[in-house]
Amino acid sequence: MPDALRLAADLIRCPTVTPEEGGALVLLESVLAEAGFDCVRVDRNGTPNLYARAGAQGAARSFGFNGHTDVVPPGDPAHWTCDPFGGEVRDGQLWGRGAADMKSGVAAFVAAAVEMAPRLPSDGAICLAITGDEEGASTDGTVALLDWMRERGEAMSVCLVGEPTSVEHLGDTMKIGRRGSLNAYLTVTGVQGHSAYPERAKNPIPALARLVDRLSSHRLDEGTAHFGPSTLAVVTMDTGNPATNVIPAQTRATLNIRFNDTHTGASLSDWLREEGERVAQEFGVQVEISVRISGEAFLTPPGALSDLVSRAVEAETGRRPEASTSGGTSDARFVKDHCPVVELGLVGTTMHKVDERVEAAQVEGLARIYARILEDYFA
Amino acid sequence: MPDALRLAADLIRCPTVTPEEGGALVLLESVLAEAGFDCVRVDRNGTPNLYARAGAQGAARSFGFNGHTDVVPPGDPAHWTCDPFGGEVRDGQLWGRGAADMKSGVAAFVAAAVEMAPRLPSDGAICLAITGDEEGASTDGTVALLDWMRERGEAMSVCLVGEPTSVEHLGDTMKIGRRGSLNAYLTVTGVQGHSAYPERAKNPIPALARLVDRLSSHRLDEGTAHFGPSTLAVVTMDTGNPATNVIPAQTRATLNIRFNDTHTGASLSDWLREEGERVAQEFGVQVEISVRISGEAFLTPPGALSDLVSRAVEAETGRRPEASTSGGTSDARFVKDHCPVVELGLVGTTMHKVDERVEAAQVEGLARIYARILEDYFA
Repeated sequence: MPDALRLAADLIRCPTVTPEEGGALVLLESVLAEAGFDCVRVDRNGTPNLYARAGAQGAARSFGFNGHTDVVPPGDPAHWTCDPFGGEVRDGQLWGRGAADMKSGVAAFVAAAVEMAPRLPSDGAICLAITGDEEGASTDGTVALLDWMRERGEAMSVCLVGEPTSVEHLGDTMKIGRRGSLNAYLTVTGVQGHSAYPERAKNPIPALARLVDRLSSHRLDEGTAHFGPSTLAVVTMDTGNPATNVIPAQTRATLNIRFNDTHTGASLSDWLREEGERVAQEFGVQVEISVRISGEAFLTPPGALSDLVSRAVEAETGRRPEASTSGGTSDARFVKDHCPVVELGLVGTTMHKVDERVEAAQVEGLARIYARILEDYFA
Repeated sequence: MPDALRLAADLIRCPTVTPEEGGALVLLESVLAEAGFDCVRVDRNGTPNLYARAGAQGAARSFGFNGHTDVVPPGDPAHWTCDPFGGEVRDGQLWGRGAADMKSGVAAFVAAAVEMAPRLPSDGAICLAITGDEEGASTDGTVALLDWMRERGEAMSVCLVGEPTSVEHLGDTMKIGRRGSLNAYLTVTGVQGHSAYPERAKNPIPALARLVDRLSSHRLDEGTAHFGPSTLAVVTMDTGNPATNVIPAQTRATLNIRFNDTHTGASLSDWLREEGERVAQEFGVQVEISVRISGEAFLTPPGALSDLVSRAVEAETGRRPEASTSGGTSDARFVKDHCPVVELGLVGTTMHKVDERVEAAQVEGLARIYARILEDYFA
């Protein structure tokens, strides 16, 4: 098997803060092309993306991997123990921005794919969909790859996303779904006036306070077999009125809902607007609610794919991964519209932080898990 | 009687935007000294103040006038019809910053006092306490004059403040008290966290929303014989958190209470802190409430002084003034600790606005009312 650790280190040396390609996809394309993969750059609106396939197009059994090479900014490099773009292995750790999230994951599945490719059965294929924009707007990244694949008949039967899902030990957690997420922007408008004469004004602030109290107090659900209860967090309320003798005309709040599959973005938007209208009536103010849905809740119910992943992890590490749906959003939210998807990767403790790093041995370990998954899938 | 209108125009020509003396007190001192008043500049910490007395110190019947020569800024003079510091009389109006608030009022009581001074009875005195800082911090203005007067035995038996109290017609309204006013600054502190995991954080926003809702919904009282109901206006709520994926550690709100004499600043502070503590307990957050009392409610109950004023107004204008307690704060809040105080002055419609002006004839009319008050008081 190719050296996943060395490839991960090489990728870290590519400066790929979103939206910079930084040479990472060029490097991967050369590695994969040399191994016989058909490679296509599927850039859209300046976002760099790479698609690579081994085996026949439209194969009956097509195993997909999805990941990203872009990284979040390192902040001040002076705060780091090692150069964030040095790709250094020190004290048994691979250091650098992207070591956990998720250049090592990409390196591990590329290594596993390169190893399996020559031995694919005639009805088998491995598809790699790698984007340079997962940390940014994500509008022309994995979505663009999936659009392009659908147009070209480049289907995946199943897909594994290599995000860092492990909590303490390699393979202790895989993700079989994610909560949905939406942001709602509340604007309450009344009538400005002098605070000495509130009866001549229409203060929007008590109305917003009532609305925020009601929304925050409401229990959205009790959770499901695979999901915890949905949560709602009001993250800011802002008026920006410096004058204590003025009742403001308008005030705003923003909230974030993480929701399980008992809700949809639309059903929650309806609920928010009903509550907004109720307060508008009670206070005689205007309530506007603008909702942006970052992603719907989704679940790949435990079954063939999660069993496959689980068995491979157990064979390599001795532990069975927990099937989790917690955590933030990932590109799995796009992949789930195309095929069953599971996420499995390294320990993500240091992701997005200073001194991001992973145990070097675990990069190789993850490559072996991925290789075993492929082996079993095509057996 | 000296020409009150000309004196008012001369005062408008003095550029007295707080804290500038602008020559106004120097002018008044020369006018009053020439008329035989004992004049003393009672400046404190750079704030200019003028005290003037006709008659004997410690006289049994000592009639006081209080007013200010400073003005709020005119804004862009280009927006004005006349030079805001021109003191122009055009179309029967006296134009300029301070025309209503309250250089004309000062001119009118100075004219009335100068006229009365030579005819004072042996047990009578007229005291003028004129400050150059009423529109600013007011910490070294009328307060300094009153402190100094108390030290020197310069007592006033009663006091008339010449603020513009009239609403539509000269003399239609006098003020016999004012509501109190306080600002409260609420700070709620929880524990910051990721909005995907609100159970690991302690969001201060729902707690503040509950507190604001409760305080805003509470009816403080039903009003009294002389006061309307007390009012509470939350004027701003601010968090300043731009990140939808972060639950903030802290959020703030500011509220303003205008209260009648069924409350004190202290009783309201206690109530606010109790409500804050209740919410702190309910949500497990910290609630800090800082209160700044701008002024306590006060009332000079209808009686000898208001009757005196009322009779004089009726004699000059044919209408009896309404005894009001509405409106913002004035230096009467300091005077009321020393003697009965009533406020009576010009129509204040244009005060603090562009094109501040008063009817020229009313300046003379107000001087006649003040003169009649003095006449009756010493009769």
